[in-house]
Amino acid sequence: MNIRTQCESARAAARRWARATTAEKNGALELIAQALRVEAAAVAETNRRDLEAGAAAGLTEALLDRLRLDAARVLELASAVEKIRTLPDPVGSRGATRRSEAGLLIARQRVPLGVIAMIYEARPGVTVDAAALCLKSGNAVVLRGGKEARHTNEHLGRILQRAISEVGLAADAVQIIAPGERDEIRELVSLTGLLDLVIPRGGTGLIRFVTEHARVPVIQHYMGVCHLFLDRGCDAEMALALTLNGKVSRPGVCNALECLLVDAVDAERLLPPLGAALLDAGVELRACERSHALLPGAHRAEESDFGAEFLAKILAVRVVDGLEGALEHIARFGSGHTEAICTDSHHRAQRFLREVDASCVLVNASTRFNDGGQLGLGAEIGISTSKLHAYGPMGLESLTSEKWVVLGEGQIRTS
Amino acid sequence: MNIRTQCESARAAARRWARATTAEKNGALELIAQALRVEAAAVAETNRRDLEAGAAAGLTEALLDRLRLDAARVLELASAVEKIRTLPDPVGSRGATRRSEAGLLIARQRVPLGVIAMIYEARPGVTVDAAALCLKSGNAVVLRGGKEARHTNEHLGRILQRAISEVGLAADAVQIIAPGERDEIRELVSLTGLLDLVIPRGGTGLIRFVTEHARVPVIQHYMGVCHLFLDRGCDAEMALALTLNGKVSRPGVCNALECLLVDAVDAERLLPPLGAALLDAGVELRACERSHALLPGAHRAEESDFGAEFLAKILAVRVVDGLEGALEHIARFGSGHTEAICTDSHHRAQRFLREVDASCVLVNASTRFNDGGQLGLGAEIGISTSKLHAYGPMGLESLTSEKWVVLGEGQIRTS
Repeated sequence: MNIRTQCESARAAARRWARATTAEKNGALELIAQALRVEAAAVAETNRRDLEAGAAAGLTEALLDRLRLDAARVLELASAVEKIRTLPDPVGSRGATRRSEAGLLIARQRVPLGVIAMIYEARPGVTVDAAALCLKSGNAVVLRGGKEARHTNEHLGRILQRAISEVGLAADAVQIIAPGERDEIRELVSLTGLLDLVIPRGGTGLIRFVTEHARVPVIQHYMGVCHLFLDRGCDAEMALALTLNGKVSRPGVCNALECLLVDAVDAERLLPPLGAALLDAGVELRACERSHALLPGAHRAEESDFGAEFLAKILAVRVVDGLEGALEHIARFGSGHTEAICTDSHHRAQRFLREVDASCVLVNASTRFNDGGQLGLGAEIGISTSKLHAYGPMGLESLTSEKWVVLGEGQIRTS
Repeated sequence: MNIRTQCESARAAARRWARATTAEKNGALELIAQALRVEAAAVAETNRRDLEAGAAAGLTEALLDRLRLDAARVLELASAVEKIRTLPDPVGSRGATRRSEAGLLIARQRVPLGVIAMIYEARPGVTVDAAALCLKSGNAVVLRGGKEARHTNEHLGRILQRAISEVGLAADAVQIIAPGERDEIRELVSLTGLLDLVIPRGGTGLIRFVTEHARVPVIQHYMGVCHLFLDRGCDAEMALALTLNGKVSRPGVCNALECLLVDAVDAERLLPPLGAALLDAGVELRACERSHALLPGAHRAEESDFGAEFLAKILAVRVVDGLEGALEHIARFGSGHTEAICTDSHHRAQRFLREVDASCVLVNASTRFNDGGQLGLGAEIGISTSKLHAYGPMGLESLTSEKWVVLGEGQIRTS
């Protein structure tokens, strides 16, 4: 089917979906979860076709792994949908009501954005996660997944649409775009008036491509080059725990630690035990000139190691001149994702919180906490590293906006 | 000077400006207001040069009027800056703090967006208004005004920069782009990484042009095609007051009433006295087939009169079949700006509030109230008709974002 036609159908369905009751939306999510459970084996079977085609086409093991959706993973997706069903419905809620000088009651009321397009790569689980979040927040959703996951995504799309029909709502609220080369992405992101927001998720290449061609607003989820700064006088044990957790617990994710900064004053105290523990944990260290001597077994860092997103058991280490030096380094090399300080100074903690420009700034906590679930959103559609509309993990509320509602008793404006 | 260089200077100044204290920012605004008062006559003199050049170039009276900045208007600008100085500083404020399962204290803290570009047409007053709002909210600002106002804008720019220097901050936080044809707008709006937001203000042509060429996020302030729906059983006197106020009090602004919708059940009761009063007030009526007979002296409406932004004493009138008909009409012809209902039905008021998709929806109040000052923002930089980031009047808060701040005591993530 034609992409424009699909988006027009989504736009038409969005108007009805925007006024769906919470009960209707929850009913649809419940049916989606049920259908995923019933069809778990069948979806896994469909996924095997994609995996076989992918293997034949020479996809790497890492890519095949992201493409894989076995029955157990499908059941996990069902549970995620159940979880989203239990979250509060943001639509229609109002903030505080103020009374104006003219006696008007003024409030802001949450409304869906309208039609949201997700453009993503291998992982087919995104099809279900993103659809459930968009639907719960009253939006229609247009899903353009990766070519490799084509059959899996189509199968999941049918499950989503059938559940929506069964509760009597327009199944057109979910559209699966058939993926080809990148031409249809270009067409998709130029459909102003039909789409309200585009969220690309995937490698930097995909996000760049979407941003470059988009006429529709885009929220970017770029990479995470996350730092931890060890302040003078900080607790050595805490520094060790935060560093290890940040780097080793899951090195391949965007909130993993990529670079350790240490105040020169305390480098001799802090670095040697840290280095030993990191090497023990299998981490490759890339040390700056000043830290190299304190880290036996470390490599010399190249300039390009600072600002790099390794997504692997590699850590850049740099000695800096106090908080000032750390702030300079982060301003230059950070990616606006997640930045942490380990400190016992109230003053320096406050300065770090105030001056570091990142979607999440932490004091004495692991960078790994920058995540919608950990921060209390229940679920997330991604982590925005751009400031407009959303900054940091995006939950249901980020998929809505607020209109002004005004209650009067016949007031007219006289000035 | 080169546009890219100017934006790089703004970007560099933005980092310092983001951490300026409220006292520093208020100090700069105070000096700006003072300087405007001292130089009021000089600015008016500069403006006369622009006016003469404009008259010689054959600008219309309406355009010359918008270009005019006499000494009295400069003093008004000074008062507006004073007003913005007294508004609360949004930067650094935190919302509610929650405690997570892991014992983390989690809050969101307001941060400036960074560098904001304003692209606008004739009115040179925007130079001061926009700069004051951006500076108070901790942002650097790049101003590209109209060619016609070139000398006035440069003069105002010097006043702004001098005041900032005097408080010891970077004057580069205000950049005045020399206006040529539209080439430099195209260059400006493609500077991703240097600009965080572009706000175009002016005619539909300008906004289209910016949206089409932008690589940087844009907030649109499109036209206002505002409706008032007179529900069955509504108070006839109130209906008359709201209609007259909406249409006549200031016909040339975006929250003025452009189309009156009347429930067919009550058209005979409501329309004849309304029509007489409107004609009395000099309003040209363009009536649909069903209302024409009830409005002596009215013209027949063309299809193109519905959805039109007249910005003049012209009002389209249409009889609709109840609330359903009104909602249909508004969904089709509204511009997402301002929509009002006059009703005594609680049920229909709630449905209207819920189902109408517009930045401001009013019950029993004039459309003219959709304005930052009237809604309690103190001042506004414009009215957004797109939902992303801001919807409706944009005040200081709309020029900021929220980052997550997390306070821990050494927590690491274990799941």
